[in-house]
Amino acid sequence: MENKIVITISREFGSGGRMIGESVAKKLGIEFYDRALIDLAAQNSGFSPEYISAYEQRVTSSMLFNIAVNGTYSLGLFPAESNNPDKLFVTQSNIIKDLAEKDSCVIIGRCADYVLRDAPDCLHLFIHADKELRLERIVTEYGIEKGKANAELAMRDKQRQNHYQHYTDRRWGAAKNYNATLDSGYFGIDATVQCIVDLVQNRLLAKA
Amino acid sequence: MENKIVITISREFGSGGRMIGESVAKKLGIEFYDRALIDLAAQNSGFSPEYISAYEQRVTSSMLFNIAVNGTYSLGLFPAESNNPDKLFVTQSNIIKDLAEKDSCVIIGRCADYVLRDAPDCLHLFIHADKELRLERIVTEYGIEKGKANAELAMRDKQRQNHYQHYTDRRWGAAKNYNATLDSGYFGIDATVQCIVDLVQNRLLAKA
Repeated sequence: MENKIVITISREFGSGGRMIGESVAKKLGIEFYDRALIDLAAQNSGFSPEYISAYEQRVTSSMLFNIAVNGTYSLGLFPAESNNPDKLFVTQSNIIKDLAEKDSCVIIGRCADYVLRDAPDCLHLFIHADKELRLERIVTEYGIEKGKANAELAMRDKQRQNHYQHYTDRRWGAAKNYNATLDSGYFGIDATVQCIVDLVQNRLLAKA
Repeated sequence: MENKIVITISREFGSGGRMIGESVAKKLGIEFYDRALIDLAAQNSGFSPEYISAYEQRVTSSMLFNIAVNGTYSLGLFPAESNNPDKLFVTQSNIIKDLAEKDSCVIIGRCADYVLRDAPDCLHLFIHADKELRLERIVTEYGIEKGKANAELAMRDKQRQNHYQHYTDRRWGAAKNYNATLDSGYFGIDATVQCIVDLVQNRLLAKA
């Protein structure tokens, strides 16, 4: 691409946000970062891949622990030595900033919209869909058992929401945090990809 | 237009949402309803135009009154005989439903996204922008005194928020209420119009 654009995508579980981000990156010919980002974080910080995989869940548990013990929790961007989830967040944030500075890319999750809130050349997106469509998707696409889909969806959404609010002090899924939000259930996956490509084009034309 | 599309636009005060909606309607060659809707409501219901103009403010006042007196307020979709703001809401809702059934159009505000939540062929949008940009807009475009802009913005946003939440029991500006949301400060007015035209096209292509 001639003009630089860094697209961050936050998404509800089962909305297809990850797949949409990957297709957008392919269409625009730019890099795509998701699990690759976790691996980089692991290499640079000494955290094990297993620890990082369970990261969001750990933040939620540690939040509940702090609320139970102290009646509150800190935003903790400058954590105590022992607070590993916070250290991991800072490490991941630095990696996101480095990636965004280098070149055009799509970054999925990891509060990238917040981490890059003051960075230039960004487009911050949120992808959501009706619960029924997401339930159907996680059963047919992710292979989650039908009987467990409802609980899995609720848990994963709650984890993402808690993780986001813990580190950003913003409301997850509030339109104001994003330059655009899209309902992938309404548009369908392919049309959502095209919507994002069009948003990028309109932004670049407006800036030119 | 060959395919029917009813576009509802909710918007923050000063985001340019009304002007954007008018341009979208012009570009698509479809009807545009804002104050015209109020006039229709006035004709059909016997409310005076002055009463309707002060409508959102009245809802807020009556809510505060109810909270002060009863410690709560009802959603009031089936209001007591004396509750005029609720009667006006029902009247306006019926008009919105009639307009949406007839033909393609753009409808601004009046909780149209909620009123038409189960209607076919709709695209529900929310337009927002950073506070600084909106403050600038309401001074230069709406002619509001610079010294009063901050208070006016806060009051109008609060009125819209209260009015929306009073009648819909939903959170104003939550991405999930809309098929798409756009930051008109980020894209600029003209590019936001083009974004919406593209969203419509992508939706119609996906449905075809």
